[in-house]
Amino acid sequence: MTHLIEIETKGPGLYEFTDQLMPFVTGHGTLTVFVRHTSCSLLIQENADPDVRTDLHEFFQRLVPSLDDPSMSYLTHRYEGPDDMPAHIKASLLPVSLTIPVISGRIALGTWQGVYLFEHRQRSHRRQVAVMMSQA
Amino acid sequence: MTHLIEIETKGPGLYEFTDQLMPFVTGHGTLTVFVRHTSCSLLIQENADPDVRTDLHEFFQRLVPSLDDPSMSYLTHRYEGPDDMPAHIKASLLPVSLTIPVISGRIALGTWQGVYLFEHRQRSHRRQVAVMMSQA
Amino acid sequence: MTHLIEIETKGPGLYEFTDQLMPFVTGHGTLTVFVRHTSCSLLIQENADPDVRTDLHEFFQRLVPSLDDPSMSYLTHRYEGPDDMPAHIKASLLPVSLTIPVISGRIALGTWQGVYLFEHRQRSHRRQVAVMMSQA
Repeated sequence: MTHLIEIETKGPGLYEFTDQLMPFVTGHGTLTVFVRHTSCSLLIQENADPDVRTDLHEFFQRLVPSLDDPSMSYLTHRYEGPDDMPAHIKASLLPVSLTIPVISGRIALGTWQGVYLFEHRQRSHRRQVAVMMSQA
Repeated sequence: MTHLIEIETKGPGLYEFTDQLMPFVTGHGTLTVFVRHTSCSLLIQENADPDVRTDLHEFFQRLVPSLDDPSMSYLTHRYEGPDDMPAHIKASLLPVSLTIPVISGRIALGTWQGVYLFEHRQRSHRRQVAVMMSQA
Repeated sequence: MTHLIEIETKGPGLYEFTDQLMPFVTGHGTLTVFVRHTSCSLLIQENADPDVRTDLHEFFQRLVPSLDDPSMSYLTHRYEGPDDMPAHIKASLLPVSLTIPVISGRIALGTWQGVYLFEHRQRSHRRQVAVMMSQA
């Protein structure tokens, strides 16, 4: 079994991939999930009302707006597009790694928790997530 | 030994539970702590001056105010109360999982580090934290 | 081999220490990195254009300004200097622990990912980072 999951993204927002982790869940220990990029993030969030995901995206868009916004004029890393440096900032505020206990063969996610890739860039990307199950 | 700690919260703020982790600390490896909810967080912060905890709460309350605040009128997930969607946002900004080295039987927390559950909801909750000690 | 790395900092900003992790990378499992302080952070970010690091520092300085800034007048923990409570807040917003898969002897960092200590205090510090390689 490979240790890489690939996730295709088409613009900013949350992409759930909880199901893709399940083949790695075995035994008793911890599952580590790690995203190999600096302009997208991982996130565990509510998997019920999709409005939660929309609102999360809107909040982070306001906290860290595009370089086109006058409030961001102090930023200097500008040559990769108006969404690039904001993406790096969001990727600092949100998780790059998650470690989830696996207790006697069952992942310890709560009922309402899903695992998401949070894309911060505008254009399409193929993102790589590394996964490792470690026995206790 | 079970792998779940339950923490009762009575409104927003930081609740220390460092002592409840100690029975899990053994051998040589890592201790993983994971909160099974999307409207509260984990946090490692200063365990000395309690003003630090008050100030942390006040900062996050200002960064992500209640839906009653006009600045949050863009949010759409509103039916679980004015503190619910802000709680999801705070739970995205703060850790859901922590992994702490255990070196020859001793947890590697610094002198001033305590482990807290950071409650973001107004009403009382019983929160579940999953804990896993993995040997190196 | 000891499990502690020491990093000297001379004022706020990002200090790369990816190379110092490499002697710990072996076998197949996860590498956990943990900072033993509450006024600095860990961060995985772009290791190419140094402007990214400057911009990250500037963003967090604006999000959480010094106590000298009138917008921070509500904070009460003030006796350790105007950069202390803001440092605790930044240390809550940014990672205290990172767990990175090691797949058949190779760390799963992406091409553009470096591991940094993010210092939030003004004066010089000697910071301790605990490191643990766990086999799967």
